[in-house]
Amino acid sequence: MDKEIVANLYHSWEGFLKYRKTTIKERADLLRQIAKEIDLLGEILIQTAAEETNLTVARLNNEKNRTIFQLNSYADATESCQWMNLSIDLGDKDRNPPKLDLRKTMEPLGPVLVFGASNFPFAYSTAGGDTASAFAAGCSVVVKAHPAHPKTSDLVAQAIWKALEKCNLDKNIFQHIYCDDFQQIEEIVQYNYIKAVGFTGSLKGGKAIFDYANKRKEPIPVFAEMGSTNPVFIFENYLKNHSAQLASQLADSITLGMGQFCTKPGLVFIQNSENCDLFIQKLADNIDQIIPANLLHSGIYKNYLENSALHIHQPNVAVLTTNKHPIEALQVKPTIITCDAFTFIGNPVLHEEVFGPMALVIKYDNERQLKHLIDSIQGQLTCSVFAENEDIQANNTAIDALKMICGRLNFNTVPTGVEVCLSMQHGGPYPATTDSRFTSVGADAIKRFARPLTYQNAQNHYLPDELKNENPLGIWRTVNNQLTNSKL
Amino acid sequence: MDKEIVANLYHSWEGFLKYRKTTIKERADLLRQIAKEIDLLGEILIQTAAEETNLTVARLNNEKNRTIFQLNSYADATESCQWMNLSIDLGDKDRNPPKLDLRKTMEPLGPVLVFGASNFPFAYSTAGGDTASAFAAGCSVVVKAHPAHPKTSDLVAQAIWKALEKCNLDKNIFQHIYCDDFQQIEEIVQYNYIKAVGFTGSLKGGKAIFDYANKRKEPIPVFAEMGSTNPVFIFENYLKNHSAQLASQLADSITLGMGQFCTKPGLVFIQNSENCDLFIQKLADNIDQIIPANLLHSGIYKNYLENSALHIHQPNVAVLTTNKHPIEALQVKPTIITCDAFTFIGNPVLHEEVFGPMALVIKYDNERQLKHLIDSIQGQLTCSVFAENEDIQANNTAIDALKMICGRLNFNTVPTGVEVCLSMQHGGPYPATTDSRFTSVGADAIKRFARPLTYQNAQNHYLPDELKNENPLGIWRTVNNQLTNSKL
Repeated sequence: MDKEIVANLYHSWEGFLKYRKTTIKERADLLRQIAKEIDLLGEILIQTAAEETNLTVARLNNEKNRTIFQLNSYADATESCQWMNLSIDLGDKDRNPPKLDLRKTMEPLGPVLVFGASNFPFAYSTAGGDTASAFAAGCSVVVKAHPAHPKTSDLVAQAIWKALEKCNLDKNIFQHIYCDDFQQIEEIVQYNYIKAVGFTGSLKGGKAIFDYANKRKEPIPVFAEMGSTNPVFIFENYLKNHSAQLASQLADSITLGMGQFCTKPGLVFIQNSENCDLFIQKLADNIDQIIPANLLHSGIYKNYLENSALHIHQPNVAVLTTNKHPIEALQVKPTIITCDAFTFIGNPVLHEEVFGPMALVIKYDNERQLKHLIDSIQGQLTCSVFAENEDIQANNTAIDALKMICGRLNFNTVPTGVEVCLSMQHGGPYPATTDSRFTSVGADAIKRFARPLTYQNAQNHYLPDELKNENPLGIWRTVNNQLTNSKL
Repeated sequence: MDKEIVANLYHSWEGFLKYRKTTIKERADLLRQIAKEIDLLGEILIQTAAEETNLTVARLNNEKNRTIFQLNSYADATESCQWMNLSIDLGDKDRNPPKLDLRKTMEPLGPVLVFGASNFPFAYSTAGGDTASAFAAGCSVVVKAHPAHPKTSDLVAQAIWKALEKCNLDKNIFQHIYCDDFQQIEEIVQYNYIKAVGFTGSLKGGKAIFDYANKRKEPIPVFAEMGSTNPVFIFENYLKNHSAQLASQLADSITLGMGQFCTKPGLVFIQNSENCDLFIQKLADNIDQIIPANLLHSGIYKNYLENSALHIHQPNVAVLTTNKHPIEALQVKPTIITCDAFTFIGNPVLHEEVFGPMALVIKYDNERQLKHLIDSIQGQLTCSVFAENEDIQANNTAIDALKMICGRLNFNTVPTGVEVCLSMQHGGPYPATTDSRFTSVGADAIKRFARPLTYQNAQNHYLPDELKNENPLGIWRTVNNQLTNSKL
């Protein structure tokens, strides 16, 4: 491994040894300060990101604001201590045998290695959700800068170091490395002082990192969010009532950010009915209106060309769109393809995500076929159902089965637009993520990077504030199985 | 794979498809009924276990009661819904863009494969903590009967099937298989319909199962509790005040159940002081009083002979005990060995657990050496500190470092005796377990087998009871970031 990177990793461990001792308040202050410093970067941040990513200034401003909101909400969440699931069981000397005093809090795992996402240069990169939740948990962070936006990443890294300085914290708590050599990435993941990994990206990349981590002498947890095809299910009565509106809503969702969201609907299942062909035509027409545009970077462009062509050329697959707009070099046209239910079920290629503005429409005939289709689908971040009450009643078994394959089940709403809040689940069964029990959006994301620690029979003054009798933080705790925010 | 086992696994999936739809109340009722049926087994259960395990009737009665208590407390925990971390973020149409209604609950992972422990024929076997927490989460269960107590396991399995019948639940929800072929065990772990694994046993066994699970096309979570050496740290002032009492307490803990507990103290670190040699002698004398006894089964006996001999014959290791009791075939004598700090640090063999009544005593000279010792220690279920306030003050850095290597930190109390309650953490950094973020004891053990599912924009009547506006279960939920047990 590059000796500078070895030094970075060791410094991250040194940073961790200091940072793990910070109070909840100090961690929240750091997150708020990072938010301020990012805001202070102003126009140069947006300009740099626009040059590196092909994303529009409007989109980048939105994402910057989301990132600032996210950092501030992790600060609030940290202070609420809800993610710690604090619990106290008081001792009882009169019981036979005597019951000991037990109090459970959370300890940070250690230095967390973060692989940022190319499609979110702010919100899921250098100071994005993974970094924020690791800092909230008390972990130091090593960000591997995404090769598609190194200058943007550097600017944000500078903001984090400034925030650390203003908070009087060791600058080693945050490390920023550049590395695109796969062999070295394996060595970094397997380095003794790295104790967890957060990753957002492709299935291929995420699975490789998961495997590296599990081959370590001491395996470490990896949360890799690896995308999904986000199936959409459209039922007869809903279609009858909302055909035009849905065709427009769905076209927007498929092409939002040129289809470069992990929650882009990539599969659309439509119950065969007298309205469905008209709807499919309308959807294709809407997609045809979209002006071709550049993708994030040349690697994604190349993959999109290859994967979309692979899907288009599968047997019994037809293209429904006929986009007439001229395209310039590196631009792509949004595309809708279609096949029948059995073609889909029998061909694993058609189950794979195409990252970019493409979706596959599948008509099916009855609930039995729908059930067969659902059984064939792999783990997803989201499933979306467009259904009236009578549709839900008529297809209850099939809709219920969707709960087994996704992390978020949407009703009459599209999957894109991931709200940052406690109730958001952004995770799902493999291959959507490597561990469906966690999320990478919302305050529960902190739980990926912390582990329970129980104090047995410790004196009150030795306990961390969140477990002390007097409840100095004024937080909710479960005491003898009852939730309370009182002192003891 | 044996075709009967294939059928068992498929039936478990069928059982899961029914059981996942049960209400919280139905799951709690099942757990309580299993507790009743185990109680009804009466003397035959104890006799059978005594014949198979070499454990005493008194110990087995205790463990049976603990198992019944455990099942009933999982029933209560299930109904409290606290393990679900329920959260509701209400929609807001006036926000730009409008905020959607999001509500998060828990879905079961699927059929859970449980490997019972030889040292807990009831509490960590067929209807033990793993089975109870999987049932609580809504998972079906496949128990691989432990080869050391197949008849005991069968009796408990019959009790579970009776309980399922009395609760009008499908008997497929519980499957009981016998299999000691390693190749077949790999195939079972890798079978598509198995979705998680609970394991209690050796590092070798647990690590093999973890690797099998991660090599699957669809990796699944494994919680393997693989034991630990549970280091004990004794400081000067505490020793001055409590020498005789501690020597007796520690000897009891090392030899409880002939040292066959995963929380047995296997390493004892003592600060060099004028009292310490006397204490060590007293500890060895106490151990010498213990009457030799049989271990659980011939495999454990054989391993103990090999591993204890391996440790005894390491360079610079001395034996402190001189137990004069005669031993019969298959019996073993509790043994204390000793070495100096640098011998311990430099020899990985001495860091390994010896399952049985052996402990290694290490004297050290100063806090710097203690810090070096602690840095060398791998992940543990527990660490125990025997210290007065002045000891804690003088060794604060070293004691604080223990929080990084264990799941439970005990003060002036021994690690054996694992309370079953919410605040208990029975887990720790690798190699104590395969995932330090979870526990196998206490209500939080349920979390190993469930994953979050968010409903977006669902109608109230479609939501599961725990998320409905009217809060029909009367439970605590986080609504717009505030805990409340009110209706909306």
